[in-house]
Amino acid sequence: MDSKECVLSVAYNNRKEEVVCKKGTVLLEALTKEQTAFIDTPCGGKGLCGKCKVKAAGEGLPPLSEREQEKLTDQEIKEGYRLACLLKVEGDWSISIDAKISQATILEDGVEFDVELLPSIRKNYLEVTKPTLEDQRDDFSRIRDALNIKGFRMPLPELYHLPAVLREKDYAITVAHNKSYIIKVEPGNTEHLNYGIAVDIGTTTVVAFLLDLNTGRKMDAVSGLNSQKSFGQDVISRINHTLQKEEGLEHLHKRIITQINGMIWDLAEKNSISIDNIYSIVLAGNTTMMHLAAGLPPANIAASPFVPVIMDRLVEPAREVGIEIAKSGCAYFLPCISGYVGADIVAAILASGMTKKDELSLLIDIGTNGEIVLGNSESLVCCSTAAGPAFEGAHIQHGVGGIAGAINTVKLDSDKLAITTIADQRPLGICGSGIVDAAALLIKAGILDETGRLLSKEDAEKGNISLSEKLTEVESNPALVLAGKSEAKNSEPIFLTQKDIREVQLAKASIAAGIKTLIKDSGKSIEDIQQVYLAGGFGSFIDKTNAVVIGLIPKELEHKIKVIGNAAGTGAVMASFSESCLLDTDRIAKLARYLELSSSPAFQDEYIKNMYFGNS
Amino acid sequence: MDSKECVLSVAYNNRKEEVVCKKGTVLLEALTKEQTAFIDTPCGGKGLCGKCKVKAAGEGLPPLSEREQEKLTDQEIKEGYRLACLLKVEGDWSISIDAKISQATILEDGVEFDVELLPSIRKNYLEVTKPTLEDQRDDFSRIRDALNIKGFRMPLPELYHLPAVLREKDYAITVAHNKSYIIKVEPGNTEHLNYGIAVDIGTTTVVAFLLDLNTGRKMDAVSGLNSQKSFGQDVISRINHTLQKEEGLEHLHKRIITQINGMIWDLAEKNSISIDNIYSIVLAGNTTMMHLAAGLPPANIAASPFVPVIMDRLVEPAREVGIEIAKSGCAYFLPCISGYVGADIVAAILASGMTKKDELSLLIDIGTNGEIVLGNSESLVCCSTAAGPAFEGAHIQHGVGGIAGAINTVKLDSDKLAITTIADQRPLGICGSGIVDAAALLIKAGILDETGRLLSKEDAEKGNISLSEKLTEVESNPALVLAGKSEAKNSEPIFLTQKDIREVQLAKASIAAGIKTLIKDSGKSIEDIQQVYLAGGFGSFIDKTNAVVIGLIPKELEHKIKVIGNAAGTGAVMASFSESCLLDTDRIAKLARYLELSSSPAFQDEYIKNMYFGNS
Repeated sequence: MDSKECVLSVAYNNRKEEVVCKKGTVLLEALTKEQTAFIDTPCGGKGLCGKCKVKAAGEGLPPLSEREQEKLTDQEIKEGYRLACLLKVEGDWSISIDAKISQATILEDGVEFDVELLPSIRKNYLEVTKPTLEDQRDDFSRIRDALNIKGFRMPLPELYHLPAVLREKDYAITVAHNKSYIIKVEPGNTEHLNYGIAVDIGTTTVVAFLLDLNTGRKMDAVSGLNSQKSFGQDVISRINHTLQKEEGLEHLHKRIITQINGMIWDLAEKNSISIDNIYSIVLAGNTTMMHLAAGLPPANIAASPFVPVIMDRLVEPAREVGIEIAKSGCAYFLPCISGYVGADIVAAILASGMTKKDELSLLIDIGTNGEIVLGNSESLVCCSTAAGPAFEGAHIQHGVGGIAGAINTVKLDSDKLAITTIADQRPLGICGSGIVDAAALLIKAGILDETGRLLSKEDAEKGNISLSEKLTEVESNPALVLAGKSEAKNSEPIFLTQKDIREVQLAKASIAAGIKTLIKDSGKSIEDIQQVYLAGGFGSFIDKTNAVVIGLIPKELEHKIKVIGNAAGTGAVMASFSESCLLDTDRIAKLARYLELSSSPAFQDEYIKNMYFGNS
Repeated sequence: MDSKECVLSVAYNNRKEEVVCKKGTVLLEALTKEQTAFIDTPCGGKGLCGKCKVKAAGEGLPPLSEREQEKLTDQEIKEGYRLACLLKVEGDWSISIDAKISQATILEDGVEFDVELLPSIRKNYLEVTKPTLEDQRDDFSRIRDALNIKGFRMPLPELYHLPAVLREKDYAITVAHNKSYIIKVEPGNTEHLNYGIAVDIGTTTVVAFLLDLNTGRKMDAVSGLNSQKSFGQDVISRINHTLQKEEGLEHLHKRIITQINGMIWDLAEKNSISIDNIYSIVLAGNTTMMHLAAGLPPANIAASPFVPVIMDRLVEPAREVGIEIAKSGCAYFLPCISGYVGADIVAAILASGMTKKDELSLLIDIGTNGEIVLGNSESLVCCSTAAGPAFEGAHIQHGVGGIAGAINTVKLDSDKLAITTIADQRPLGICGSGIVDAAALLIKAGILDETGRLLSKEDAEKGNISLSEKLTEVESNPALVLAGKSEAKNSEPIFLTQKDIREVQLAKASIAAGIKTLIKDSGKSIEDIQQVYLAGGFGSFIDKTNAVVIGLIPKELEHKIKVIGNAAGTGAVMASFSESCLLDTDRIAKLARYLELSSSPAFQDEYIKNMYFGNS
């Protein structure tokens, strides 16, 4: 063996694996290169967030760096934790990765919907006339004539199989096709086997649905953290990866395609179907995720004026992008509206049905970004705010996504702080809905003032304020203790700090300002809005009243809120089941007008106004 | 080295090469596998034709087989010739291959033509508006809007490069596109670089043209023997190869694609252009050649009812079939009419212009098969006869194609037999036009009677018939000596034998019968025909009077014959230069009605009638 290679023994998720890498490789790279593990790296591996903790043991381990000493607790240091992004591999070490991040419980379900079941891809059983010396039509013409579709084409890989398939069951054949292409020919009658996949590629999480295109049944769903996460938590870090490394784009493209293929295999296996009977895949995601999935360079989305390569809906042979369904199956990439309002929002608009109605609706999707759409069947205006990460747990000291063990509600129970966690597990962090609850509670208790300042424990006790016993100090600033050392899963207290509150303040200000800017821009008043759709995982768990208390959503809209869950996923499913929905996405993308907030003085005004807590 | 491997030292065409193969490999396979050499194998390597002669020397050579003793002359045996198809490699031998077959001089030029220069693929220079915060359209939309073409698409590989190309010369860009697709984007103004390729894939020879799509200039042409020839001389042997070997189809597909790519490279290099500026390739060939070039299984063409996979014109990304031009360049496979009337005939019809006229025309293409078309702008009827091989030199003892050294005319000069050869080289065989001349001469001399019987030398001398001194006996039958041992290039006399005459008789009978069957079927009389187009290499050199003398062409048509050369190639060139010609090929294929002769009693009648020599 090359003396410059190191062999890591990696324990992860009850599995052990060997990872071979060059001496000197950054540990994080070595661990994520072959998709060995999902490691949470919100900062993109820059040593800033301290979330890529792994246990490392073995000879040649260098002493802790200053940064590691700063980011790791004494307990963690004692247990041998290191930051994978700061450590270069120097020997044949044993690495142990906490599996918490992979135990994601992610919202797979969206709203109920009602569409006409008429997918783009249909199957037809045909008993084709056999050739004779009097009827020497070629094989392809026999099928085209039988289907009676003009201007019809068949890809070469399918034509290749056609003669054999046609003759295998004596000219009885089933054809999977859309309006212009034959996707596949199968011997005999296989009309009953007609499946599709819909995928919502979130920056954080990926959800895939298996669909029975004959019955309109959502058969199954799987989800997982986006496997590109090790290249950065947000779209900008991922775009930077494509710029900094020559093969960066290919990395990210392959990552997501491999993940989607894995999900397809899982779904097919679990449901005992063949991937050869999956004829379509509909993909939704933000504009950058769509670029990465299609293998297109997203570089210019990152810098002003934020220009994508293409926003039209793409219809490509799935194999062209590496997706493994039936060989000539179709991949439909839903259209985007702008560099920061993507196909996920188009799909969410479709799912909300807002463009089918005359009444004015507002749609808010708080994911890694916060996108806001205002409109009806006549017009649509939308914007994107850099709001999301705080509500997804990023930039929050003990913030986590909507995973098992995340504190998702915080309230007072007989004057005592009471929390619940997702899946009722011991708490390991706080997610978006918990953050909103906690902030609202602090406001209501009088601990958090309009300007965003927390009272110190001392001052709170002086004022005899309830909850003051839960206050403490972190880095010389006040903080709320949500779970003590003994309660917390990682034996590490969970706080909400003054700094966290500042992050929430910025995030809620930008959402609220976005809403108000859209209303102003379209010449409407807040009273004109009849319905507010809250989409995304965060939206599903949020306490609406508390969202109003902290000023995330204007008070006037409190009773008009409808939670529509994973609306992007729902929209992708709808587009799979109904060609008319698929075509609606083109109409939605065309109807929508994008408002660029980065250059909007009106938004800046509102942003500063809405920085205050409470409903202005 | 593996002891079971043998290393052959192969001398060919002034080159020496090493060929490594497994012990026991048939020599022919070893020599042709890597396209080391073109070896003529009309019988498809079955030990029947005796044309795959190579010199072999070295240890372990087995004694001559009976078949080899039969097929090789004493001189050849003395010189060490063996039949490559019958010999298994047993040692590290030296092999020497006569290069005669590679010195092909093939008709590259067709008729003059006059088309409107408006190719499917055009180039447009654009100075695209730069993006700003007020104009955030994506890169693709900028180009689509600038070209003002709706429903326009761009393949992923081109979209991938778009952002970089657009910005390389400050949003000045040249777009190569057809009506629905962008083929390529290039930085700056490259409108002047716009090339296409047209290929005529004959069963025997392949001709490729390099075309300047801006000027309509035929810049250059190259030709070569079809590299699939080592798998059999005719379409049936090649189809059999796809049936007999699992990878047979792939072999043949790769062979022809590799050959075409080699020709493209040669043309590009010779003319100092880049293959990245070649945006289209138009392919013509018979139905089987088109299937093999597209990689489609031709199996069902071989057996009744002779059904192809597809006959429609195919438009495929060139890279999809392995053709190396600009990455997203288009390959246009011209349409076919039936299993035995292919895209070459469609192209020839286009080149003849017969469907543009009201007058009735007859088109005859005698290649490896003999295809005949009768019609005008209103109707077209066509057929195919298994006539060709004799006129291409196959099944004729000393028959060769139209190569240098082929006897191409035979006449009487002051009562003496006089021959000419292609390229004025010493004779090495006789090609189609020479065969027709010789047969006509023998008829006129009274040596060949109506029934096809040759007078013996003895009888001819008794009758005091001129030419009798040139008669001899081969295998106890009369034969005409065309070149004596001392004249012939291979020091081997060149005969036309009684058996050869029988082959000619069958071939001319089927062409003549085909013509008459078509006339009868379309309810016309021979006088209605205003023009006869003779296409193909054979047609170009044939003596029209002699063709009438032997009864190949009816006497009534003698003065209506127009030679149009490589009309298939010309048609492919026209379709490259003019989109309207390209679309005409679809119309021609649709207009044409195919008459299946194998089941036609009328044809059988005519066939027997026309078996006699002389014009019935």
